[in-house]
Amino acid sequence: MEPLFFEANTLHILDQTRLPEERSYITASDHARVADAIRNLSIRGAPAIGVAAGYGIALGALQLQNSGKDDFLKGLDRIIESITSTRPTARNLFQVAERMRLLASRAATPSHARAILLAEAKSLHSAQKEQDLDLSRYGAELIPPGATVLTHCNTGSLATGGYGTALGAIKLAHEQGKRIHVLATETRPLLQGARLTAFELEESGVPFHLIADSAAGYFIAKGEVQLVITGADRIALNGDTANKIGTFTIATLAGQYKVPFYIAAPFSTFDPATKTGEDIKIEERSPEELTRMACVRVAPAGVHALNPAFDVTPARLITALVTERGIFQPEELSRQAIRLL
Amino acid sequence: MEPLFFEANTLHILDQTRLPEERSYITASDHARVADAIRNLSIRGAPAIGVAAGYGIALGALQLQNSGKDDFLKGLDRIIESITSTRPTARNLFQVAERMRLLASRAATPSHARAILLAEAKSLHSAQKEQDLDLSRYGAELIPPGATVLTHCNTGSLATGGYGTALGAIKLAHEQGKRIHVLATETRPLLQGARLTAFELEESGVPFHLIADSAAGYFIAKGEVQLVITGADRIALNGDTANKIGTFTIATLAGQYKVPFYIAAPFSTFDPATKTGEDIKIEERSPEELTRMACVRVAPAGVHALNPAFDVTPARLITALVTERGIFQPEELSRQAIRLL
Repeated sequence: MEPLFFEANTLHILDQTRLPEERSYITASDHARVADAIRNLSIRGAPAIGVAAGYGIALGALQLQNSGKDDFLKGLDRIIESITSTRPTARNLFQVAERMRLLASRAATPSHARAILLAEAKSLHSAQKEQDLDLSRYGAELIPPGATVLTHCNTGSLATGGYGTALGAIKLAHEQGKRIHVLATETRPLLQGARLTAFELEESGVPFHLIADSAAGYFIAKGEVQLVITGADRIALNGDTANKIGTFTIATLAGQYKVPFYIAAPFSTFDPATKTGEDIKIEERSPEELTRMACVRVAPAGVHALNPAFDVTPARLITALVTERGIFQPEELSRQAIRLL
Repeated sequence: MEPLFFEANTLHILDQTRLPEERSYITASDHARVADAIRNLSIRGAPAIGVAAGYGIALGALQLQNSGKDDFLKGLDRIIESITSTRPTARNLFQVAERMRLLASRAATPSHARAILLAEAKSLHSAQKEQDLDLSRYGAELIPPGATVLTHCNTGSLATGGYGTALGAIKLAHEQGKRIHVLATETRPLLQGARLTAFELEESGVPFHLIADSAAGYFIAKGEVQLVITGADRIALNGDTANKIGTFTIATLAGQYKVPFYIAAPFSTFDPATKTGEDIKIEERSPEELTRMACVRVAPAGVHALNPAFDVTPARLITALVTERGIFQPEELSRQAIRLL
């Protein structure tokens, strides 16, 4: 089940908001449709958002026909702006956008730029797949045979467009015959754990149980969790990591009970321009995600809710970061990333 | 809106599973109907369960007509067993049952016993109301003007049949003009926070925001919470306290960030026969509470879930316990409770 694929100048996006009940694809042949799909979480997960954004910008460039280079670049800026305004926390979105902007500005003509942008979008997608496998191999090394692994949110194929990051490592450890067991948090408010991680774990045959987010601390304190591994939406220069709301709480509990806490994320998630977690803007999403559930109002009419979508886990709570280039301590990662980026 | 009332030998129970959409009462004129209402959470919260159990046992005794004393007591034992088998963690349930059993055994005849049990059920109910007000007055003292108070689950009128415990203290602080603000967790899986606490806070005019359970740690770490106050289902001899799943995690975060963490619960919640939290049996509820939501399947078919309904907060994380007889440190409470019980 491919989370997204490009065919005949159309991006097909598996609509994750309809999983697990329905497996249907959104067909996007223009950038606005791609932006909508990112905004309403039909596609989510920082790496998958990056891949979709690449195709979205390339599709936008194809729409900008019959213009001179200056007009083309101005039009492209508006398209990039509409794509990047969808989700403020995902690092990959901005990185892809900057790369696409640079490539377009260097192209001799709009026609060259269109060809280059489309080729780049495809190349980003296949690079993502390779990167995921490299990262998953490193991550699987950290998972001992027989371990119970706790994970939060969804970091599988559905989140990256490839094999997955944290969930990729988990799936690979299972394929290696390590007889692991997974505790997957349901991940309120949008239930990416219950809907998506459970879906991927079932498809992969990995034994697992779903738990409430607030039960994670209970199982950690009981000694039933051997390690925690989650993804990341943005990693700051000092190793502080933004990820799905609740990650910080799980990391705090893991720290208290000496359970290793790993972040699995590609180097592209690292943002040297963000000094510490305090500089990361936390996306506030619609209160309706909390007051309604599966189209049913669960809170009384008129109730106000606060709905931060992410929190920041300080570097001191992160045992190690798993990347496509190996496993690093937070401070090592900074040095490597600055050298490589 | 009374959560339960007794009239013409019938117990009327506000069906909390239908709130906030619908305000309807279950009419129970036999003990089996009361047991069902407790089991399926139409009435919940340890003190309210205790009050309902009292009426349920009294109703059961009324059904045991035309029997000698021995047969009556045997029949009553079966009724008590059916009532106490509904929820394994609520302390009050067992306490009320023991008290009713003792009163019945001391009565001269079944007819006397029936009258005594019914009078006792009514007296337990009115004592609960007085107790709640006493406790709420002590609790409100701990809430400084302008504070943001975080609470978990529902501990209001709906949970006690009276004025409430933790939520009673919050409502009273608001009535005292302290201009407080509440963060109420939604409390998965059954959403007692979103459905019931939000309902009661709205009815009482207390300013509040609903948050996801996994956002509690985020707001605590940001310094936006001045104190946490929750209820309790059972307090062990050493002060360890069982309460709704997620309480322990919130207490851990509060401890890390030096935010006072209070438990508000009547003395009846204290169980000197339970030495520490490790001796508390944790109720495991149906996995369907996690895999379905508002009648919609949210996890793929066949997904297994683990659904512990409670966790235990160790005494070291509890700043103080608020009771109807004052505010105590966990170790003081033990001494007081042993003296008084």
